[in-house]
Amino acid sequence: MVLMSGKELADSIKAGVRAEITANGLDVGLGVILIGDDPASEKYVEIKKKACEAAGIGFKLHRFTKSNSQDEVLSLIRKMNSDEKVTGMFIQLPLPDGFVPNELLEAIDPDKDVDGLNSVNLGKLIKGLPGLFPATPEGVINLLRYYQIPLAGSKVAIVGQSNLVGRPLSQMLLTEEATVISANKLTKELKEVTLEADIVISAVGKSKLITADMVKNDAVVIDVGTSLYKGKLVGDVDFVGVSKKASYLTPSPGGVGPMTVAMLLSNLVKAYNFQHKRGNHGNK
Amino acid sequence: MVLMSGKELADSIKAGVRAEITANGLDVGLGVILIGDDPASEKYVEIKKKACEAAGIGFKLHRFTKSNSQDEVLSLIRKMNSDEKVTGMFIQLPLPDGFVPNELLEAIDPDKDVDGLNSVNLGKLIKGLPGLFPATPEGVINLLRYYQIPLAGSKVAIVGQSNLVGRPLSQMLLTEEATVISANKLTKELKEVTLEADIVISAVGKSKLITADMVKNDAVVIDVGTSLYKGKLVGDVDFVGVSKKASYLTPSPGGVGPMTVAMLLSNLVKAYNFQHKRGNHGNK
Repeated sequence: MVLMSGKELADSIKAGVRAEITANGLDVGLGVILIGDDPASEKYVEIKKKACEAAGIGFKLHRFTKSNSQDEVLSLIRKMNSDEKVTGMFIQLPLPDGFVPNELLEAIDPDKDVDGLNSVNLGKLIKGLPGLFPATPEGVINLLRYYQIPLAGSKVAIVGQSNLVGRPLSQMLLTEEATVISANKLTKELKEVTLEADIVISAVGKSKLITADMVKNDAVVIDVGTSLYKGKLVGDVDFVGVSKKASYLTPSPGGVGPMTVAMLLSNLVKAYNFQHKRGNHGNK
Repeated sequence: MVLMSGKELADSIKAGVRAEITANGLDVGLGVILIGDDPASEKYVEIKKKACEAAGIGFKLHRFTKSNSQDEVLSLIRKMNSDEKVTGMFIQLPLPDGFVPNELLEAIDPDKDVDGLNSVNLGKLIKGLPGLFPATPEGVINLLRYYQIPLAGSKVAIVGQSNLVGRPLSQMLLTEEATVISANKLTKELKEVTLEADIVISAVGKSKLITADMVKNDAVVIDVGTSLYKGKLVGDVDFVGVSKKASYLTPSPGGVGPMTVAMLLSNLVKAYNFQHKRGNHGNK
């Protein structure tokens, strides 16, 4: 069994981003919007800040409290849209009650939308056009490519259909010409679905959801879920059991997680290049 | 076996559109762009024109020849975007060589995009937000609803992954909480995939692709494909054979086809309502 190290690939992507920024003198600047005081959000923002600083990306945090208004946030987004120094931005989710995430996400200039959650970018996924795409599913695709797992013609089961992971991931895999099975909480006999898949990707957040009897011999198993089990962060996959059957398996934590930050950095360079017409951009 | 009459439902939708337009005095105006002289495109445009006239929708055809430029078409699109009298528009596809369809489709105001092929609208599908969506997959979903086929928790196989049908349809079915299996030409053992599905939808354009041995007893079978067989327009499904096993089956022609025009009319009213803030619009 090969352990798929997201950390190894993430480190190599981060080094590549840093090298491209340094070699070409790119002035990449990220604006981050954080609303409220959720401790997990604070932690994630801190991790992203450190990664940006290490890669030579300018990082500016804009804080709002629960008592600020949706309109105040909207007006900052519009300001950053027209500020050439801001080449990428994202809003740390989830938002406190009273804020409408979709209205804020849709207001971001699609070419600066480094989280890939604007409808324009998600629509490009369905069309198979270049764009900025959500970091976690991009991380999964890149991890599969790095370990040279064949996607075209393979049967891939995705368990969990969130807007952030499962749904965009299914479209990425269709672009790769995989046969995609999208399962959700209403799927009867989940085991039947996962047992026939060459690749099983679980993105639910329910510990021990995927057990050894649910995957076929030599399957590739990617664990995207996170939940708390006895006070510890764990994935969806029963690692010990599944490791005896799978040919490739991600650890969790340390598998897909580190890829998310790496893909954010990669998106920041992509966004910069779109804005400066350095790369191929489907929409222009 | 119940024959799913797209014509019956399409007629009822068209009557509903006409009634809403008349009752509320809606001034719905469609601008159509036709480039080149493809005989099939001429025929489809003529069918849509008649349907619009019957429903009380203004119809204006703008013709271009192969020797017109992409920029000339773009400038008409921009003119129609800012013309309040034009409440919907579409470009008849396919385009002659030398035109870039995506650049034209992306230029259309998403709120006037009655073919639903702008990335903004396709992205709303992934997010499950209200928008204007492609007519053929919308027709399939409406036909399934009309015959009260349960979607949540059902296993649906979609054969064929085009940008116009298969790919948007998978996202519509995920919104309905179905378990979706997306198969393409590289899928090994297509029969295994279709045999386990409660609902089989074929959108390939290959006659007799779906035969009786490929569907389970009492399956629902929707035929979206069209191709020529011995000089006659036929679907993907071997109708006679499959009709002995299916519980519900569309004829082809006469199944999904008529729904496409009805959904275009329905999108025209939806677009008008978005622009006049009469309905619920996710993006505003």
